[in-house]
Amino acid sequence: MYTIGIDLGGTNIVAAVVNEKYEIVAKAKTPTAMPRTPEEIFDDIAKVCRESMEEAGITIADIDSVGMGTPGTVNSQGIIEFANNLGFDHVPARQMLADRLGIDEVYIENDANCAALGEAYAGSGNGAKDFVAVTLGTGVGSGVIVEGKLVTGVNNAGGECGHMVIVVDGEECTCGRKGCWEAYASATALINQTKRAMQEYPDSVMHELAEKEGKVSGRTAFDAMRHGDIAGIKVVDQYVKYIACGLINIVNALQPEVICVGGGICNEGETLMRPLRRYVEAERYSVYSKIQTKIVKASLGNDAGIIGAAILKQAK
Amino acid sequence: MYTIGIDLGGTNIVAAVVNEKYEIVAKAKTPTAMPRTPEEIFDDIAKVCRESMEEAGITIADIDSVGMGTPGTVNSQGIIEFANNLGFDHVPARQMLADRLGIDEVYIENDANCAALGEAYAGSGNGAKDFVAVTLGTGVGSGVIVEGKLVTGVNNAGGECGHMVIVVDGEECTCGRKGCWEAYASATALINQTKRAMQEYPDSVMHELAEKEGKVSGRTAFDAMRHGDIAGIKVVDQYVKYIACGLINIVNALQPEVICVGGGICNEGETLMRPLRRYVEAERYSVYSKIQTKIVKASLGNDAGIIGAAILKQAK
Repeated sequence: MYTIGIDLGGTNIVAAVVNEKYEIVAKAKTPTAMPRTPEEIFDDIAKVCRESMEEAGITIADIDSVGMGTPGTVNSQGIIEFANNLGFDHVPARQMLADRLGIDEVYIENDANCAALGEAYAGSGNGAKDFVAVTLGTGVGSGVIVEGKLVTGVNNAGGECGHMVIVVDGEECTCGRKGCWEAYASATALINQTKRAMQEYPDSVMHELAEKEGKVSGRTAFDAMRHGDIAGIKVVDQYVKYIACGLINIVNALQPEVICVGGGICNEGETLMRPLRRYVEAERYSVYSKIQTKIVKASLGNDAGIIGAAILKQAK
Repeated sequence: MYTIGIDLGGTNIVAAVVNEKYEIVAKAKTPTAMPRTPEEIFDDIAKVCRESMEEAGITIADIDSVGMGTPGTVNSQGIIEFANNLGFDHVPARQMLADRLGIDEVYIENDANCAALGEAYAGSGNGAKDFVAVTLGTGVGSGVIVEGKLVTGVNNAGGECGHMVIVVDGEECTCGRKGCWEAYASATALINQTKRAMQEYPDSVMHELAEKEGKVSGRTAFDAMRHGDIAGIKVVDQYVKYIACGLINIVNALQPEVICVGGGICNEGETLMRPLRRYVEAERYSVYSKIQTKIVKASLGNDAGIIGAAILKQAK
């Protein structure tokens, strides 16, 4: 049997046929082309599902279940209660997809949670049953898996580790709290930290680097560090400490088998991962335990969400 | 069938026969009388188990399983790897108890985790499957339950929410980190916060109250607040904010059905719980969800650990 995994994004809709080894065997894609009505969007979702089945040479009779990852908040009935960038307000996604595809087994979940599932089962988690995925992007997304199942909590809103405060009364966060991990460890936060350091260090090579690139980016401080620039070194070291702080919080609370870290910043590879592991090793509560949480880089990229969506039936 | 729950503490050993409704039907107790060898202590544990069965009018043949809560770190083989206040270093607790009682089904777990289980199944959790227990004492203890099972992680060291940093580079914590929730929300932390405020406010009624009581305690600031004392009001409000900060972090990460708060400070009852709920309601990420985590006071007191130990077989 096969399953279908769908990634509904603000830019593209991607559907893929996934086999029992969690491998993508066929994939189809179409632009989301916002703004459109939910009906139009779901017609296209069904269309790319059919295209992916056609490419795989199978029919809906070969499909055990369909799963979809979406931005926003999904309730336990598979209704997308709210998705800002799709303009969705209480869209009955599960039903709309079931009707269009003629299959009952349809599962809808937040896209960050799907990505966590994909990494846990088929990516950097290597099948780990207790797993947390953290994505350092515009914000800090996360998905928590315990005993192979997503932890979504009593209201399907769980897994928001990015909104754990690490600095009481600290930087304003988009969520309304002050001092959230996201406000210190996201790519956005790194850029702000870089800009502040540039003001403080007018001689830093970061000014040149930013001018060349046309903007201050998540790479500016890392590149400066590689030039031996003091300001760059300081920014990177402090940023890595902030990431580590949240990771250690997660380790102490849950002691997962693996935490994977993803997002554009992770293109720095071991430049980021090595000091990150060193800080986590030094500070975790379980410092004397023989078995320790592994901190690894996410490995599936954009496919994580599609594969995770395809697994939803078994992991919800 | 019945089960036996044991609470092994630094001061007393308590064993109880528990029925299928999670009710204690008989209880026996003896002093731990440290320092003694593990063999002597386990002889006494078996003795109080037999006394509790005798009082209940049953024999070991009526017992389905035995569970014990202990301070320190327990591994998955039921070996107490380290328990500072008992002087234990790799004590094979599961085996020692099984041998002495003549029963195979023996489960050993950290005492804070047992207390969490007891509250979840039989106390303030009222059967909640997703539950976190927080105890504000000398430290901040916690136990995390997901889908009715304890989350102990890959190395049985999970559930240490007290050691999540809420203030990067903040107050020194006993665990070696700086700024842990425990360093701000424990009773010990409250006493330190009270002492600092007394230095700052030499006219505060807290000086009189502490003199009357013979010491600064966890009650001093609360009593001063009831006298309308500015310094007391400030200390209590800030302390409640610190507790709320950690609770909101837990809500955002896990969205449990219920979080219960226990420990001596909770004798303040609604004086503590009401503002605590208000802060949590205002700041949690899921502010628009219809279903929300309930914040309640622990209800079983010392029996939580015993009842939780008695449930270990089904919850591990």
